[in-house]
Amino acid sequence: MDTSYNFLFDLALILLCTKLLGLATKRVNMPQVVGALLAGLLLGPACFKILKTTTFINNCAEIGVIVLMFCAGMETDIDELKKSGKASFLIALIGVIVPLLGGLGIGFIFNKPSLIESNATCTPLLENIFIGIILTATSVSITVETLKEMGKLKTQAGNAILGAAIIDDILGIIALTIVTSFADPNVKIGLVLLKILGFFVFIGVIAVAFTFIYKKKYVNVKKGLHRHAILAFVFCLLLSYIGEVFFGVADITGAFFAGLIISSTQRTKFLASKFDTLSYLFLSPIFFASIGIKVELKSMSVAVVIFAVVLTIIAILTKIVGCGVGAKICGYTTKEALQIGTGMISRGEVALIVANKGQSAGLLGDNFLGPIVIVVVITTIITPILLKLVFKIGPVRQVSSSNSLGQGYEEIDHYRVGN
Amino acid sequence: MDTSYNFLFDLALILLCTKLLGLATKRVNMPQVVGALLAGLLLGPACFKILKTTTFINNCAEIGVIVLMFCAGMETDIDELKKSGKASFLIALIGVIVPLLGGLGIGFIFNKPSLIESNATCTPLLENIFIGIILTATSVSITVETLKEMGKLKTQAGNAILGAAIIDDILGIIALTIVTSFADPNVKIGLVLLKILGFFVFIGVIAVAFTFIYKKKYVNVKKGLHRHAILAFVFCLLLSYIGEVFFGVADITGAFFAGLIISSTQRTKFLASKFDTLSYLFLSPIFFASIGIKVELKSMSVAVVIFAVVLTIIAILTKIVGCGVGAKICGYTTKEALQIGTGMISRGEVALIVANKGQSAGLLGDNFLGPIVIVVVITTIITPILLKLVFKIGPVRQVSSSNSLGQGYEEIDHYRVGN
Repeated sequence: MDTSYNFLFDLALILLCTKLLGLATKRVNMPQVVGALLAGLLLGPACFKILKTTTFINNCAEIGVIVLMFCAGMETDIDELKKSGKASFLIALIGVIVPLLGGLGIGFIFNKPSLIESNATCTPLLENIFIGIILTATSVSITVETLKEMGKLKTQAGNAILGAAIIDDILGIIALTIVTSFADPNVKIGLVLLKILGFFVFIGVIAVAFTFIYKKKYVNVKKGLHRHAILAFVFCLLLSYIGEVFFGVADITGAFFAGLIISSTQRTKFLASKFDTLSYLFLSPIFFASIGIKVELKSMSVAVVIFAVVLTIIAILTKIVGCGVGAKICGYTTKEALQIGTGMISRGEVALIVANKGQSAGLLGDNFLGPIVIVVVITTIITPILLKLVFKIGPVRQVSSSNSLGQGYEEIDHYRVGN
Repeated sequence: MDTSYNFLFDLALILLCTKLLGLATKRVNMPQVVGALLAGLLLGPACFKILKTTTFINNCAEIGVIVLMFCAGMETDIDELKKSGKASFLIALIGVIVPLLGGLGIGFIFNKPSLIESNATCTPLLENIFIGIILTATSVSITVETLKEMGKLKTQAGNAILGAAIIDDILGIIALTIVTSFADPNVKIGLVLLKILGFFVFIGVIAVAFTFIYKKKYVNVKKGLHRHAILAFVFCLLLSYIGEVFFGVADITGAFFAGLIISSTQRTKFLASKFDTLSYLFLSPIFFASIGIKVELKSMSVAVVIFAVVLTIIAILTKIVGCGVGAKICGYTTKEALQIGTGMISRGEVALIVANKGQSAGLLGDNFLGPIVIVVVITTIITPILLKLVFKIGPVRQVSSSNSLGQGYEEIDHYRVGN
């Protein structure tokens, strides 16, 4: 049988199963993302072994997550971020430090030749720090989808989660970049930091140039044209590529800032609706399924299984505690602090990307990859469930300002109604 | 430098260049498809050698052409086709036979190892027939746009062109299906014909089942939901895959019939708008560019250049003569017959789709792809120019009926305004 057309079948299967399982999880009041992840797990080598990752699936998944982050950037209200910036920064900072220490600690206990053998090429200390770095990641997309489905995005807690998640991303990327730079003895730390600084200067220059050109040429053009959507996509892809290849920053960071730059224009709503179609009809089912497909539950020793269980618990608790404490310090109620902490649990694609990078840089032994994938899957599945619980506890404070951070999300919400 | 992110750069470059060159060709009153093709030619090994085909580009291009054919199927008005059927059928039939013979004839002359070496895996006869089949294609979209601009779409000639173009598509697909089935030399002819028959029976069964289920469950659901678009996509992909793998029929044939089956539902407009976005924002630029990228003009010997020139002349003349004779037989005036024939010259994306299919099936040597791209580009550029000339000759008969065939095209026009 001709196998060169298998990608058509793979795509049909991914679209069908993510949607069917998504609708099934929606039936039992869980977000559709959980169904999409489960579809990947079931289809992949971990279960029925029908699908395996291919170049096509990998590349489309990568573009899928880039488009998701691009949309997240477009839908971010910069003015509101500036206002809620201080609180978000503190929540993110403590929410990064506590999981980092948690990961480091559990690494110290388990990362011994007598318990779990590691084939990492770096020192055990650096490997343990790296495990901590993986735990700092936050994948806000699942939380955003869940809050949107529940209609809780425009709450004080929802607002804080969005702001903190953005800063968390930036902190995580800085930490990742610094630690990976230790793996290569030839790379100088100063150069790495300079590159990160260079990226933000680059983004700043692009933002100023963009605003200048836009104001000059397009501010009075009301109609949304094909070319605007295509040029926006090109802009997003180029910033992703340049960030990754020239500045050593994750491509999704570039995509996010591309969206952030465009968010100031009048045409965001038109663009968001177009990229929403591209995303739900093609790219994001592939991305979510691909996470599940990547999981390979190889034969794990007892110590590795115990490590996986403890790591998962640590991953969940450290985010709730870290972000919760940060929120309490910033004057949020205990309920809200719990909601914020819960909203930050999901590690999703970010942790996988970080772990992947670490493994190829010799910072993470193969034995640790399985447990980390389990952490990602469980935290991603559990976040929507826990979010539903903690938002049921009591009444939530809605955001009074019409300029809330969630605003953009609610506005484009009608495109997503009736998934 | 990390090359694993090159697909992002490739995609950005394809989107940017196809759009910029598309807008440039539009400026000089030529269709944007020409610009998109030129972009691929310029970026590919034929010119600047910046891009080469990758698995990612190939797979996305394949899905792109599947979606194009799916949309073409959805936009076909079966009822209207039945009404104007007889005249349109005769025009289309003679307009298919004459170019087929023309292509076959010129193939006989040029397709010899002493003139043009072919690396096709089939017999020279089959390859020559395939060249003929490519010449049978008609891309009506360029003619429709030109006639609309001139205000001549609702003329007798305009009506005949539309009807004939649709039937031309179907005849072309049947011819393509039969010829591609013969590509494998080990296959028995009886079995091939049985498989093709089986495919049409299969499509018939699916169509009946679809109509039954649709009427039972969905006929009263007016709202267009995400799941409908996704399920329609799954339907299209599965029919493409099943057609190709189990019946040996081109995947685009499956996609076209999937669209034709869906065209009878109330939700076609909603679906068409969603797939239009997916197409213009991501898939179809990759498809059109990929055709150009596949062309290697360096390998064009003098014989190939002469072949390209003669093939272009044959392509233009055979359509004018074939369709013109058909129109005369059906009682159109000589002027109208000339107008109808001229309106069918453009080969556009349809010929590219067919050529692409033939090349990957081993029915068309690499040396013939360049000349065919040249035929497509020249016939596409020349059609609007010739149409303007032949419609200037004298007064035209307007269509009195408000139910003219052009109606459907006018309705879906708002999706395409402002490219």
